[in-house]
Amino acid sequence: MTRGKFTVAGGGPVGSLLAILLGRHGYEVGLYEGRPDSRVTSIYQGKSINIALSDRGWTSLEQIGVGTDAKAEAIPMYHRAIHGVDGELSRLPYGKQSDAIWSVSRGGINEQLLDIADAEANITTHFEHWLVDVDFETAGTVFQVKRDQEITVEADYLFGADGAHSKVRRLAHNVPRFSYSQTYMPQGYIELNIPANPDGTHKLEKNALHIWPRKDFMLIALPNPDGTFTCTLFLNYSGSLSFESLQERSAVQAFFESNFADAMDYLENPVDVFMKKTAAPLFLVQVFPWSFNRKVGLIGDAAHAIVPFYGQGMNCGFEDCAELNRLIASHKHDWDAIFPAYESARKPNGDAIAELSKRNFVEMSDLSGDPMFQLRKKIEAKFSDLHPQLWTPLYSMVTFSPEVPYAEALRVGDEQNKVMERIMALPGIEDDWDEPYVMQQLLELASEAFG
Amino acid sequence: MTRGKFTVAGGGPVGSLLAILLGRHGYEVGLYEGRPDSRVTSIYQGKSINIALSDRGWTSLEQIGVGTDAKAEAIPMYHRAIHGVDGELSRLPYGKQSDAIWSVSRGGINEQLLDIADAEANITTHFEHWLVDVDFETAGTVFQVKRDQEITVEADYLFGADGAHSKVRRLAHNVPRFSYSQTYMPQGYIELNIPANPDGTHKLEKNALHIWPRKDFMLIALPNPDGTFTCTLFLNYSGSLSFESLQERSAVQAFFESNFADAMDYLENPVDVFMKKTAAPLFLVQVFPWSFNRKVGLIGDAAHAIVPFYGQGMNCGFEDCAELNRLIASHKHDWDAIFPAYESARKPNGDAIAELSKRNFVEMSDLSGDPMFQLRKKIEAKFSDLHPQLWTPLYSMVTFSPEVPYAEALRVGDEQNKVMERIMALPGIEDDWDEPYVMQQLLELASEAFG
Repeated sequence: MTRGKFTVAGGGPVGSLLAILLGRHGYEVGLYEGRPDSRVTSIYQGKSINIALSDRGWTSLEQIGVGTDAKAEAIPMYHRAIHGVDGELSRLPYGKQSDAIWSVSRGGINEQLLDIADAEANITTHFEHWLVDVDFETAGTVFQVKRDQEITVEADYLFGADGAHSKVRRLAHNVPRFSYSQTYMPQGYIELNIPANPDGTHKLEKNALHIWPRKDFMLIALPNPDGTFTCTLFLNYSGSLSFESLQERSAVQAFFESNFADAMDYLENPVDVFMKKTAAPLFLVQVFPWSFNRKVGLIGDAAHAIVPFYGQGMNCGFEDCAELNRLIASHKHDWDAIFPAYESARKPNGDAIAELSKRNFVEMSDLSGDPMFQLRKKIEAKFSDLHPQLWTPLYSMVTFSPEVPYAEALRVGDEQNKVMERIMALPGIEDDWDEPYVMQQLLELASEAFG
Repeated sequence: MTRGKFTVAGGGPVGSLLAILLGRHGYEVGLYEGRPDSRVTSIYQGKSINIALSDRGWTSLEQIGVGTDAKAEAIPMYHRAIHGVDGELSRLPYGKQSDAIWSVSRGGINEQLLDIADAEANITTHFEHWLVDVDFETAGTVFQVKRDQEITVEADYLFGADGAHSKVRRLAHNVPRFSYSQTYMPQGYIELNIPANPDGTHKLEKNALHIWPRKDFMLIALPNPDGTFTCTLFLNYSGSLSFESLQERSAVQAFFESNFADAMDYLENPVDVFMKKTAAPLFLVQVFPWSFNRKVGLIGDAAHAIVPFYGQGMNCGFEDCAELNRLIASHKHDWDAIFPAYESARKPNGDAIAELSKRNFVEMSDLSGDPMFQLRKKIEAKFSDLHPQLWTPLYSMVTFSPEVPYAEALRVGDEQNKVMERIMALPGIEDDWDEPYVMQQLLELASEAFG
């Protein structure tokens, strides 16, 4: 006997994970994806698109009981490798010695989750099914298959796990009183490549996230298992130095040579790629509600598309799934209770990681430009080592502390900020930062704020 | 010789005022409105829909040089008349003795501005023209007239002054990287009526804005020149006491009698009206940019639809017009400069009044519920009288200080808030508030913050 029928729209990592957990809870699940099955058509072949996964993502997979080889295949990055304009390299650890964020292949983890879903008897997967309509009263959906054929799928419930451009979410605009926000960043991005050495090793330090922070713009590089790096150039759309202003090939050449001199030895035809590619936009989407008529829900990027500067997008989507997994058990399959509990629990955290990820552009792109910022990080790290019960740095709360909800991390981070502003305003802090009185003062302020 | 041709979409108060100022700057202006001309069809007849206008609105009209009879016909409201559950009445002044907000007839001021526009040789007005398409590259527009006929209007520039549900703004979604936000409040509203006395006088005190604040919901009443009051009931859509929960006639009757006992003597069939009407939603819209290709702009509610709790909607739209009026002169008709200057100047103020108007629901609906709030207002007013250079209460900055931009008012108001929280935390403040030491302490804190 089935507990009911679910349609999951979207066969990306979040949709696949959701299908698995629903299937294991005894539901009959139809997982529908618009694109072809990458396991058959190899659409990811030769493409190294990686994505950051960290403790929240791994913990969520564990909580749902999904074992994958993803972590074995992923590359841990223990620190930021910061490339100065002069080519000087400095390192800023992400957390404590063993703390790492992981570069995983998006296609790889997606395919592993699809394989797991396909192995469950009560999950069916359907590719090249484009969602065209949703009935928000009945959870019925219409998919286009082939050129002219449409099929109607009835179900008890529907989840839109169809990503940042979610069609389910767009159709929800027809539901009365749907609050919606889409916010574009001033920056756009293009992807560049650093090829592997002939022997398959990495041309740059493998276990690091490389950043060329240039304040208003930046280049980053994440390692792939095949020895390559996938690089992303973030740059303003318009303004004095921008995708708009850099039209001439000579200007682009000069831009790369003056800003990323050391990377020019490694990057694969960056000027050609720049000239040929159209910058992709960066945007955030926030909506409310996340569920409609106790029938239809949104999850992952469909509910909270964020910018990539905190590397938390997939982590947040997996956390949505883990929360739902808990709520199905605690509310004993009562979806009249699960939907509202799910959106109450997750919406504040979705909003918080949206805010944090937006802010983090400045932190990433301005890192090496501001020695006071690095000093501040050093002071925080030292204090956190001395008084771990009083202070976990914001980055560590977000990335290495899955037990701290994003919303709580944001709130505590803002309090920490106020404290650190007073510390950094101490006269002579640049020379004295290692003196005991600084830790003493920080202890007093932190005890007052968090004790 | 004309300086160029403008299409203004939307013939409400803001669109009419915009057409007038553009006409007076020498442009050829076509003003297009979807609805019929109320001066001909009398669609406003018998309808008393009033709207608050205050110093920013009047000042903007003056700056543009538009004299209307609107103020002579408007009713000044000097204080809030707060009706307790027990029928007890208390008064809370809006500002200093002569400070007032004004209840004006929306239809009346609209028709006056249309008359002024019609008197200008280079302005043409067109009614029953529904905007159906915009070319954001050329500023060309398509209007539907009659049932099946469409006309295309070419122009050099276009402004969307077509209100909270702006079609121009909706079409702007096709422009790349358009940031957009629509936020629904938990409350909806219905309008009720208090008829005039047989002799045409008002049944309640005329020169006041009446509020029945009940924390999660409230009733308000604004006076009309014909002796009536237009009342608005704001109530949650769903929850324990809400439009959704109040379905039975007997429950509605009990709701009104227990919460608005004193108003029941005056309200015209409130239970009937409640049972018959569908609650209207309350929403905010925020977008960016406000201009496209230096060809098309948004203004008034089309650029910043807000909730009515600060009575600033039309004031803000008129300020947009006054700013544009200044910029046309200072940038000498160079629209490549005017559009960006206009949106830079006004967007932060639109956002600020959106935030302030959202927050003010709590202030209005919780006013009498919290004696500490009223005490706080009293302390602030006293201090402001003693030290006007140091302190203008937030409400007065927003409403009576057109020289202070909304964004500045919001920022200073937040600083004041921090100061007042410390004052209200003084032990024994309820008894001691009139003691000199309180003013002394406030002076020290305010001097530190604003001195």
